Amino acid sequence: MKRTFASLADGREIVYYDESDHAEHVLVDPRDLPETTTRSEIRYDAALDEWVAMASHRQGRTHLPPSDECPLCPSTETRHTEIPSPSYDVVVFENRFPSFATSVADVTPLSTDAGPDLLVRQPGHGRCEVVCFTSDHSSSFSQLSPARVRTVIEAWVDRTIALAALPHVEQVFCFENRGEEIGVTLAHPHGQIYGYPFVTPRSRQMLDSARRYRERTWRNLFADLLAAEQADGSRIVTRSELWTAFVPAAARWPMEVHLYPNRHVADLPGLTDEERDDFAEIYLDVLRRFDALYESPMPYIAGWHQAPVRIDRDLAYLHLELFSVRRAAGKLKYLAGSESGMGAFINDVLPEQAAAMLREVRPPFELGRR
Amino acid sequence: MKRTFASLADGREIVYYDESDHAEHVLVDPRDLPETTTRSEIRYDAALDEWVAMASHRQGRTHLPPSDECPLCPSTETRHTEIPSPSYDVVVFENRFPSFATSVADVTPLSTDAGPDLLVRQPGHGRCEVVCFTSDHSSSFSQLSPARVRTVIEAWVDRTIALAALPHVEQVFCFENRGEEIGVTLAHPHGQIYGYPFVTPRSRQMLDSARRYRERTWRNLFADLLAAEQADGSRIVTRSELWTAFVPAAARWPMEVHLYPNRHVADLPGLTDEERDDFAEIYLDVLRRFDALYESPMPYIAGWHQAPVRIDRDLAYLHLELFSVRRAAGKLKYLAGSESGMGAFINDVLPEQAAAMLREVRPPFELGRR
Repeated sequence: MKRTFASLADGREIVYYDESDHAEHVLVDPRDLPETTTRSEIRYDAALDEWVAMASHRQGRTHLPPSDECPLCPSTETRHTEIPSPSYDVVVFENRFPSFATSVADVTPLSTDAGPDLLVRQPGHGRCEVVCFTSDHSSSFSQLSPARVRTVIEAWVDRTIALAALPHVEQVFCFENRGEEIGVTLAHPHGQIYGYPFVTPRSRQMLDSARRYRERTWRNLFADLLAAEQADGSRIVTRSELWTAFVPAAARWPMEVHLYPNRHVADLPGLTDEERDDFAEIYLDVLRRFDALYESPMPYIAGWHQAPVRIDRDLAYLHLELFSVRRAAGKLKYLAGSESGMGAFINDVLPEQAAAMLREVRPPFELGRR
Repeated sequence: MKRTFASLADGREIVYYDESDHAEHVLVDPRDLPETTTRSEIRYDAALDEWVAMASHRQGRTHLPPSDECPLCPSTETRHTEIPSPSYDVVVFENRFPSFATSVADVTPLSTDAGPDLLVRQPGHGRCEVVCFTSDHSSSFSQLSPARVRTVIEAWVDRTIALAALPHVEQVFCFENRGEEIGVTLAHPHGQIYGYPFVTPRSRQMLDSARRYRERTWRNLFADLLAAEQADGSRIVTRSELWTAFVPAAARWPMEVHLYPNRHVADLPGLTDEERDDFAEIYLDVLRRFDALYESPMPYIAGWHQAPVRIDRDLAYLHLELFSVRRAAGKLKYLAGSESGMGAFINDVLPEQAAAMLREVRPPFELGRR
């Protein structure tokens, strides 16, 4: 795999990841691109003991452009996109409308009268990157070859290491939002990578659970959960020597699959070559099952849970959480009062039923799996 | 106010709350209604230390019927709805497709091999009720009279007391989901009341914050947050002698208003008559501002945060949280990877801007407020 570093017209970084060692790229972005102002900040919500990000400059961001104006397609002689090169395998670049950035304006305290812990704001330091999985606008992650997924994994690993080395970044999150149903504004197959200036609330909650479990049992919570799911078996979707894909017993979403390496690994850089090869196959299998469930492709969110950069690395267990808001053909699950107001999820689909549906569905084209 | 108790054809409870002491109601439901089976259960998510509800019988529930088939309109001679009477002021009845119920089937353990704490399920004991705010199908909460809102408050108070007295109920949540944009399946103005068999995850997180704050300061977190917002002033939307409505400094949603009583009260039954009167006015004012912001009525979720039934009652502070997913005319905020995957909210609208918009908007018809 070959990496090529370059810069976009407004100074943002771009990195090409190519399967051929002979790949060449256009290193100069000919656009006259005004520098964007990033007015990101994070505010402390004392009621929930959580950080919330404010990114008011994002209101004007690109919203579902027609496909002949896609900013993620390669550039042509007559049209310049975010990617100056005429083709690419996988490419990563800084988001033009980031929620977090390396350079952001400083912020003044919200109020000097309030108690010191109550109204707190900080600059939104961090990083937001876009990952294009293929130059083919009308493809999807599930249609990538295993070799291309391997290249995507290398990009995730590489960027995880790079973002973790940035000042202020406390957690690196590689994820994909797919489908207009969940508000995706660009159809081109792509994911994102966030470098957060805090450990995210959900990760912190999981690590707190894992800490209490370890204090009680001297064991790793996630390793034991995986073992329990493997022993029970009724919610396993597919498994290999190195990975297990299952619907968790307490799934929140009508379709939800977690993919765990069978070996305890803290983050993506910790995966062996064999584990990366095997993940490419098992993940494509699961995604193709997702897409085969209904007549139209499944909207989904897929996110890597990695150990934070500095703390609780021993408690974390790398895994991917994949879920969909689709609860039946043509029906979506909405987060309403119980979920959004109280955090109490109500799932209309039993996890055992979801797992059976995913086991039984026949993907339109199958991989040669063991 | 007059209360009238009756039963529906399948045994569910219905309670009428009338402003006239002479109101009479049809006490017999003439329908031949099959008993529904409630297969609710709750499962323990050990990774997050939270309960998740499973309600697979809800998949077949009523979905946006045409308005001449609305089950929440009063019954007529030719059409029988969920409400047998030909008219009502406010009526509460048990949901036909509940997420929690008083009588649910028992459940067997998920797996006997797994550790005792890992795969846990329990019956979904509790209660789910529907509250109709008016018999006028095409009205909305914001169009109710202050007197009607007072009747709704009495119903909330009454049902909070009734549900808290049921076995297994640990928290009572009165809320309204409004708008197709957030998946509301019935247009008739109505809300819901849930009696949960656990303290909800978001409440538990807030009460844990409040406990740590009290240990550090000997003070109530929410009272201090309210005082800080009052002192700062820049996010106040409207206030009276007894209530304050403000956009919280760390708002998660593009439009979000919290309404706090100025006096520390634990739950709705604890409000004085004057506080109830005043709430009706200030809440209508805020809702009318919400509806006046854009050309079409605002989709929103409004939820009462009340003290749990048994624990941490001294830490809690009654308040209403009102928020919308609309982030601009014709644009919605979706919860994608960062929010749904990691619990890290990114808000595109600064709370100070949201508060200014709500202060400056002129509702189509104003109440005579001080």
